[in-house]
Amino acid sequence: MIHTTTTDLIANHRTIRSFKDQTLSPEQLETLYTAASHTSTSMFLQQFSILHVTDLAKRAAIRAISGQQYIGANGDLFVYIVDLHRNQQIRQQLGFDDGRLHTFDVFMQGVEDTVLALQNTVTAAESMGLGAVILGSVNDDPEQLVKVLNLPALTFPILGLQVGVPNQEPQLKPRLPINQIAFENEYPRDFDVRSLADYDKIVQTYYDLRNANRRIDSFTKQITGSKLTKQTIERDKLAGLLKHQGLALDWQ
Amino acid sequence: MIHTTTTDLIANHRTIRSFKDQTLSPEQLETLYTAASHTSTSMFLQQFSILHVTDLAKRAAIRAISGQQYIGANGDLFVYIVDLHRNQQIRQQLGFDDGRLHTFDVFMQGVEDTVLALQNTVTAAESMGLGAVILGSVNDDPEQLVKVLNLPALTFPILGLQVGVPNQEPQLKPRLPINQIAFENEYPRDFDVRSLADYDKIVQTYYDLRNANRRIDSFTKQITGSKLTKQTIERDKLAGLLKHQGLALDWQ
Repeated sequence: MIHTTTTDLIANHRTIRSFKDQTLSPEQLETLYTAASHTSTSMFLQQFSILHVTDLAKRAAIRAISGQQYIGANGDLFVYIVDLHRNQQIRQQLGFDDGRLHTFDVFMQGVEDTVLALQNTVTAAESMGLGAVILGSVNDDPEQLVKVLNLPALTFPILGLQVGVPNQEPQLKPRLPINQIAFENEYPRDFDVRSLADYDKIVQTYYDLRNANRRIDSFTKQITGSKLTKQTIERDKLAGLLKHQGLALDWQ
Repeated sequence: MIHTTTTDLIANHRTIRSFKDQTLSPEQLETLYTAASHTSTSMFLQQFSILHVTDLAKRAAIRAISGQQYIGANGDLFVYIVDLHRNQQIRQQLGFDDGRLHTFDVFMQGVEDTVLALQNTVTAAESMGLGAVILGSVNDDPEQLVKVLNLPALTFPILGLQVGVPNQEPQLKPRLPINQIAFENEYPRDFDVRSLADYDKIVQTYYDLRNANRRIDSFTKQITGSKLTKQTIERDKLAGLLKHQGLALDWQ
């Protein structure tokens, strides 16, 4: 591996879930927003927005949706929004119809813009000595989240992000070996679960601070466990929410 | 703005589309894969893979799909794949059903994993002095792309990436002002297109190397122009391709 300040930073990423009782300075905020704004954007459509949630009632509502005590507690909370509304407004106010804004294709371009910008925010935060956690759980009740944030049509809150001064030092979490995720020319059709035996052992030696410093299940045990068990949950309202927001209406 | 090596790198991001006739070293490749692999991943499901396309026929096929001469020319070409197939194989080989793998929710988690990892790859590349371009156009004919890459069910090629030694020095492309994309507590309901007048002027002074060094249209002119004009294109097969790949089957 080639070591630069930035490759070392990225390769040593830890998710931080416990923050000191301190909020970001205006200059830190500006830096995070600048990092997000200079991210690559599909067809220069710039289809994302960031909502900085400082209101205590809203933070509590998001915490209730996510069911995680640390969300909206210490640190700064953001929601990253796939935003086709701004471009709709530009078109409408200049006398144009909505064009392709209601297609799945343009929605996915907005998703890509938003998630790319989110990662740049995380990396920028970590380079300033801050910690961050990306929050999928803000969508554990997607209809409620849109209500709490009072979002207009053609917007879609995709992920939360909490940033702050770290109050914990987690271990580096072991990832799948490179030869299991990167391939040349052909996607392998002969995957054999036994090839993960060593990795399974490595994962079991990792301590997760979320679970009272207990070791965690092997990777394959997690994949066959409750995370993916067949069931219908509130998150399955995500697809319906898209329609409600006027997004991806051409999906059949 | 707070200047660290990494925040400066991210804030000065330029898309590079012209590369020297040079390929990545094994160590550079390993660094890019390591950066991708240590990215945050939803519920630790690790649902992405990277296909490094070195085969000349495949590169030509992808170039034909994308309609861009520089794609698969100089530099290294990658396709980033939302990969739920690996976890399906783990479950099946250990005697489990597919669980929630065919839901829109888990598909979107895979999308997020993949796009986050892609951005970390770009940042890592740039920190090594390389340039990169994210390629949405590899999906200009999504069915054909899946055929060319011979991808199994529960995979979905979402974006391409080309990386190499830069052979151009583009200007920094001006982005929407921060106050148009970052908000506190309330998403603004009173957007006025006239607030973009200054930004429109700034965008017009930017020279795009793709268009023979001509200035480009203002931002609002681009948004009301052909990029979003109502029409049905090959890319609208993306949603159908998802079904074909067994993804997001609960979408109604």
